[in-house]
Amino acid sequence: MAAMAHRESMLTAAAQATGPLAGIPVAVKDIFDTSGLVTSYGSPVYENHQPKSDAAIVTLLRRNGAIVIGKSVTSEFAYMAPPATRNPCDLRRTPGGSSSGSAAAVAAGIVPFAIGSQTGGSTIRPASFCGIAGYKPTLGMLPTVGMKCFSWSLDTVGLFGAGVRDVAYLAQVLSGRQLAPGDVTANPVFGVPDSYPWTAPSANASGVLDMAVRAIEQAGGRVQRVRFAPWMADLVAAHDTIQSYEAYQTLGFEYDHHRAGLSPLLAGFLERAGRVDTGTYVQACVLAEQAKARLSELFDGITGLLTPSAPDEAPDGFASTGDPAFNRNWTLLGCPCVNVPGLGGTRGGPIGVQVICRPWDDTRCLDAAAFAEQAIAAAVGRFPAT
Amino acid sequence: MAAMAHRESMLTAAAQATGPLAGIPVAVKDIFDTSGLVTSYGSPVYENHQPKSDAAIVTLLRRNGAIVIGKSVTSEFAYMAPPATRNPCDLRRTPGGSSSGSAAAVAAGIVPFAIGSQTGGSTIRPASFCGIAGYKPTLGMLPTVGMKCFSWSLDTVGLFGAGVRDVAYLAQVLSGRQLAPGDVTANPVFGVPDSYPWTAPSANASGVLDMAVRAIEQAGGRVQRVRFAPWMADLVAAHDTIQSYEAYQTLGFEYDHHRAGLSPLLAGFLERAGRVDTGTYVQACVLAEQAKARLSELFDGITGLLTPSAPDEAPDGFASTGDPAFNRNWTLLGCPCVNVPGLGGTRGGPIGVQVICRPWDDTRCLDAAAFAEQAIAAAVGRFPAT
Repeated sequence: MAAMAHRESMLTAAAQATGPLAGIPVAVKDIFDTSGLVTSYGSPVYENHQPKSDAAIVTLLRRNGAIVIGKSVTSEFAYMAPPATRNPCDLRRTPGGSSSGSAAAVAAGIVPFAIGSQTGGSTIRPASFCGIAGYKPTLGMLPTVGMKCFSWSLDTVGLFGAGVRDVAYLAQVLSGRQLAPGDVTANPVFGVPDSYPWTAPSANASGVLDMAVRAIEQAGGRVQRVRFAPWMADLVAAHDTIQSYEAYQTLGFEYDHHRAGLSPLLAGFLERAGRVDTGTYVQACVLAEQAKARLSELFDGITGLLTPSAPDEAPDGFASTGDPAFNRNWTLLGCPCVNVPGLGGTRGGPIGVQVICRPWDDTRCLDAAAFAEQAIAAAVGRFPAT
Repeated sequence: MAAMAHRESMLTAAAQATGPLAGIPVAVKDIFDTSGLVTSYGSPVYENHQPKSDAAIVTLLRRNGAIVIGKSVTSEFAYMAPPATRNPCDLRRTPGGSSSGSAAAVAAGIVPFAIGSQTGGSTIRPASFCGIAGYKPTLGMLPTVGMKCFSWSLDTVGLFGAGVRDVAYLAQVLSGRQLAPGDVTANPVFGVPDSYPWTAPSANASGVLDMAVRAIEQAGGRVQRVRFAPWMADLVAAHDTIQSYEAYQTLGFEYDHHRAGLSPLLAGFLERAGRVDTGTYVQACVLAEQAKARLSELFDGITGLLTPSAPDEAPDGFASTGDPAFNRNWTLLGCPCVNVPGLGGTRGGPIGVQVICRPWDDTRCLDAAAFAEQAIAAAVGRFPAT
């Protein structure tokens, strides 16, 4: 399945570990530097590259006793070129990307936890495709330092685990914030958009969202229909502008000196990205700042938004890692997002729903996601089999 | 004077260079990775460290034909431990820090341009102490990718040149934004605070600010007294919290594995920083976000703020790189800041005034700073000699 890029022998380290993650094996996306393990960023340009120090998230793992069991496969520099990793739920499909190996390693039961990242939809989408929990914290809550940067305004650490309580526990340990949901008793209010200013969800994804809504209502949660203001549509283009403009700079060394080592997909993207002018970029940054000042319009009166995590189940084959359309705006706004697993689509694969909250409301986001997960688990027996 | 940490032979590169910076030598603070030059981050832990790639700002320099002539001295990991570099204006004084060598190399005429960084006041303060122009752009305008991170919420690239038009030209080339001031004809309105919720300026710095105000008014600019709202005081503590909390993570690998290689000043700081709890950090981040949504209160009705760049001239000796109090809030808010040189204090050293604008208003900030610089230059002959 090729979920792991580099492994280490871990018996000695595990025996000596202390802390809340003592001896727990964690896979780390090969986009994060590790002092004792080769780090290739998914690129032949960095074959056998040995960083001198650990990325900050790796330091946090090790401080808490975790064992970095190995580096999980990433798409090339965390962009869109599909790696060889397969989806453990259906080996003929992509697990999504760019955190392909991290999601697959958890879904296959190789590790209980994995670290990934999200610049567009690289955590929530593969979690949805692989039927596990994925958590993209508030932008800046967990350090991306020592991660190969793609876009400094967007790159966010992502966490994978079997369920919402798993990722919440891992996030709590790594951040020191109180994040793990307690007994889920409060009755959250989920805002469900009536439409999306990007790719429309498939009938398959809409059906799953409807199932989630019914399950939440049956469990005592409330659902409220909401409508996005026009500025949400403008943000879609702003994300694309910011990601492109910044990637042409962050991968400038590789583009200028190692172009033959880049995939045609990435080289073509960077070539186009180099034509984004700075005025357009600055406008996009200003728009994003203005949108962050208007988040009340999105979140006042609800606990969080509930949307599909992706436009559909994992696509068949390996030509694409799927579409991050349902994730990009939330990444740009810095909102915490949780993929809630538990439901499947009409083609037999998993497909998740996503809880989204205001930046820094991570506790509430994980709590609401745990509510939804529990509601879905309770309801799944009552739904007709697909 | 020890402004340069590592040098390279540059004749061949200079002869082949093309672009708007063709053949121009630029010193780069040794906190930025360079593929062809040792990069030590001012620390013995990284003695002889050779990065595999260039920092993004170095890529931008090279794309535009500049010659990275060498790495300029930085304080250890861009923190406060003073390096050996002296102030070219008075060899018995510090040039300030942490971009000590970058400021000194420009002030001494070794290079026309230098790259530095600012997390607290590491660009504006040394520029003030060394009598040159320093420019800290809007947070995120120039890439910090490939710079050794101290605080991911605060780290900003800084530029040094002899005068405001120099840094504006360099910034325009690197960013692709129209930034270089044209004929300064508009009459800017400078907001001058009646007091500061941090270290009070010395009588020396207040006197220089008064001189600048008189010069600006004589040149046709206007000055308006402004008063900071109480939330400006809260931001001072927020900056400290964010910087400490993040540094304990970004330098976690060095703290955990190379503590003996750290200065006592930095090791002590990190030890205290490790006690900042996440709840306090999150509050500080939320406060900063709220403040960014209230910038109209600071900037509406004025072109920019005008304050001292530092509480005084460069201190004597080398025990300290000086106090970043006048810089920290603007770094946290992401505001562009320009140190305007041209005035001197009662102790015979240079001391600058700082123009501060709203994020992304860099063009206006450089334009207003050029106006102030020109006004000061015109007036200096009329002031009594100090």
